Amino acid sequence: MRRIKLTIAYDGTNYAGYQVQPNGNTIQAEVEAVLARMHGQRVKVVASGRTDARVHAKGQVLHFDTHLQMPADRFVKALNAMLPDDIHACSAEETETSFHARYGAKRKEYRYVIRQDVDPFRRHHAVTVTYPLDVERMRQALAHLVGTHDFTSFSVTKAEVEDRVRTIYEAELVETGEEMYFRFVGSGFLYNQVRIMVGTVLDVGRGKYEPRDIERMLAEKDRRVAGITAPPHGLYLWNVNYEKVD
Amino acid sequence: MRRIKLTIAYDGTNYAGYQVQPNGNTIQAEVEAVLARMHGQRVKVVASGRTDARVHAKGQVLHFDTHLQMPADRFVKALNAMLPDDIHACSAEETETSFHARYGAKRKEYRYVIRQDVDPFRRHHAVTVTYPLDVERMRQALAHLVGTHDFTSFSVTKAEVEDRVRTIYEAELVETGEEMYFRFVGSGFLYNQVRIMVGTVLDVGRGKYEPRDIERMLAEKDRRVAGITAPPHGLYLWNVNYEKVD
Repeated sequence: MRRIKLTIAYDGTNYAGYQVQPNGNTIQAEVEAVLARMHGQRVKVVASGRTDARVHAKGQVLHFDTHLQMPADRFVKALNAMLPDDIHACSAEETETSFHARYGAKRKEYRYVIRQDVDPFRRHHAVTVTYPLDVERMRQALAHLVGTHDFTSFSVTKAEVEDRVRTIYEAELVETGEEMYFRFVGSGFLYNQVRIMVGTVLDVGRGKYEPRDIERMLAEKDRRVAGITAPPHGLYLWNVNYEKVD
Repeated sequence: MRRIKLTIAYDGTNYAGYQVQPNGNTIQAEVEAVLARMHGQRVKVVASGRTDARVHAKGQVLHFDTHLQMPADRFVKALNAMLPDDIHACSAEETETSFHARYGAKRKEYRYVIRQDVDPFRRHHAVTVTYPLDVERMRQALAHLVGTHDFTSFSVTKAEVEDRVRTIYEAELVETGEEMYFRFVGSGFLYNQVRIMVGTVLDVGRGKYEPRDIERMLAEKDRRVAGITAPPHGLYLWNVNYEKVD
């Protein structure tokens, strides 16, 4: 068996999320259905992680094992011929059989897109915030998130995850003219962590919290002290990196 | 009665076009339904022109008459509260009762967006052309379209329109990095004219025609000598201008 590393992009608007579940169509189900047709049998796909309903990906990474002998890049054409047009195979390569899309991920980048006016063309792909935002204050808040912290206050408490310590290498706000986006690069992220960080930083931007309140929120390790969970449709899993970080 | 000039934007993806028709939902039907709720009676809306199914608008202009006494800009808020989120009221102003959204239009601008790779996020909003395109040749072809011409070769022949002479003031190709767009400013456009011009210019860009063939096509006044009609979802009615041209 050969192992294939596959990078895909998807518009999450019309999906119940990445992971297969009883109700609702999912990205995983679409990809596995196409691979099953190609292989004549079920092919299990492993992703770098899940994305929620209406969350997008520019560079989600998957792996699967195949007995087919075709060159890896032929999977890209074959998948794109059969996938729905809101899921796109970007690249495929053969890797060592020890490669694991989830456990091997060293860094992930997420982006979250905000705009300050309503644009019907961006309604599924950016979140509109109509209240005034102080960009400088938000940048100060983001600086407090960088580093190795226990992110309990910025994660959903439902599951009793062992360890809520994660490292954020970069947290920045980029203005692109009509829009702005938050960019987070980290060792990994807890469930809903990016959306809660964004909701909280937006609250700093509108004056509800001070930038230095982020430090207090991290220290309190209590979901109730941070801000709201920002909506899903502004969020993009931007890329996943498997190289060792120095 | 007061006359209101209303500018709207819409994502045409999920509509059968602008104009009310027996089957399929339309932009006009949505706007008129909201105005009927506000007025307690039917309100007829006149647009600068129709757009086809899946064609978009960034600045479509409408007019309607109202007996309501509220300031014109309140219509924007009221409409946006009730319209679906793929139609957006941009601005409203009271005009003279002689203003007519269709007959008063002096210039229209259309844009047509092309990209050379597949992007699932742009699948409804830009047309992907994967064959190589020679930008210089396309610019030369566009230059031949500028001016006052009989555009019979670049229009659908089904209706026996009186006069197929139109003036194009500007025709350019703009590269934006990831995409490019054609931009046409003219006195008015025949049915499907922009899409046929784009289809033909793309054929020049891929080497099927020479740029100077545009002159011959115009002279022959025969739809069959021009290129194909480009797909609808790359097309945007960008704005409509009612000021006299010098």
